Amino acid sequence: MILDICLSPALYPFYKKENDTVIVVDIFRACTTICAAFANGASAIIPVADIEEAKQYKLRGYPVGAERNTRKCDFADFGNSPFDYTQEKVKGKEIVFTTTNGTNAIEQSRGCKTLLIGAFSNIDALAKKCIEIGGRIVVVCAGWNNRINMEDTLFGGAFAEKLFNENPLKLDSDAVKIALELWQSAKHNLLNYLKDSEHYQRLIDNKAEGDAPFCLQQNTVNLVPYYDKVNKKLKIY
Amino acid sequence: MILDICLSPALYPFYKKENDTVIVVDIFRACTTICAAFANGASAIIPVADIEEAKQYKLRGYPVGAERNTRKCDFADFGNSPFDYTQEKVKGKEIVFTTTNGTNAIEQSRGCKTLLIGAFSNIDALAKKCIEIGGRIVVVCAGWNNRINMEDTLFGGAFAEKLFNENPLKLDSDAVKIALELWQSAKHNLLNYLKDSEHYQRLIDNKAEGDAPFCLQQNTVNLVPYYDKVNKKLKIY
Repeated sequence: MILDICLSPALYPFYKKENDTVIVVDIFRACTTICAAFANGASAIIPVADIEEAKQYKLRGYPVGAERNTRKCDFADFGNSPFDYTQEKVKGKEIVFTTTNGTNAIEQSRGCKTLLIGAFSNIDALAKKCIEIGGRIVVVCAGWNNRINMEDTLFGGAFAEKLFNENPLKLDSDAVKIALELWQSAKHNLLNYLKDSEHYQRLIDNKAEGDAPFCLQQNTVNLVPYYDKVNKKLKIY
Repeated sequence: MILDICLSPALYPFYKKENDTVIVVDIFRACTTICAAFANGASAIIPVADIEEAKQYKLRGYPVGAERNTRKCDFADFGNSPFDYTQEKVKGKEIVFTTTNGTNAIEQSRGCKTLLIGAFSNIDALAKKCIEIGGRIVVVCAGWNNRINMEDTLFGGAFAEKLFNENPLKLDSDAVKIALELWQSAKHNLLNYLKDSEHYQRLIDNKAEGDAPFCLQQNTVNLVPYYDKVNKKLKIY
């Protein structure tokens, strides 16, 4: 089993190898929100990169989650907070979803063999699934407009540590070592460590910092979303 | 004064702002070697991204340094070791230079206002020059084939620490924080820390690990190479 971490979706072409399993990660907040929506019974999530496409779905009657620059788009039913996607609102439904970075990362990683969605929310279920799949696993951090961010990098480190503890792991990537090192510094006081990050400031500016503790909590759900290439939808195993 | 760090040249489009000063960094070994060549009296260095172009210069009588995948190219006069560029060989001469990553990073950053070459070799001279220039400084790490590497990231952290100690610095970039954190872990035993890195292994495979201690030594030279856009040459201030 091999693990690599790609710190920006724009770098994935340089990390891509045949038969990769990619884990798309956007901790604040898209991937945490996708996990929450599935835990509350959504039957599928249709990720779209483009606002116009999301609006077309809305006109056709789909419930739509849409966020740009940390804010809910006016036309949408939901923003990008995991707390928006309650059981009453999402159970049994297919949700259309577009966010600043998360859906862009899904778009840019689609060429891989298997695409999974990762967050602290589902980290143990994810590790179990990756050990089952084996081969080469690449964590693709969504970042911010293709820039590197702290929280997704930290997840990469946390995930590497998790796999290390459970499985022999070939560690030949500088990016994995960087993420692991960062995780060792941050893990005992993660929320506080992240208060100094770029995106935490954006959450504060948009009165969304209340989402942060939930987004950093491990194993609130026991599921792994994957991208169904034929139907272009996220589903769960 | 603002500092940012771009961990791969392929990400520079997402970090670029008007009037940037870019510091291209390739610790193992292109930028260290450029500094050494100037310290030994080279009058200019002509960076070319392409092997064929370097061969053309060779036919026209220029001394040529050329490396691909850590090895000296057969047709070239020099490889990518700083020890190749002795005073006897380079004094008063214009040298053509092409390497796997360093010249690619120069190529990808050319759109900036001022382009400087940075290494541990010239870190203090570089900090002094950047304080003089002011504005926004972006360290562009050359990496390895656009992948992130440890040693260039560590230089970013060292440089951030240096500027912090000498100047009020606006710190709003997650990438700078990541590099600083890594530097704090590594700085007391830098060579040992890097023995675990991807490129150190490549140096060993090519019997070039003897260059590593020199590449990590601070302030062996007191000069700052810059890119002269009109003449497409590196010169020194």
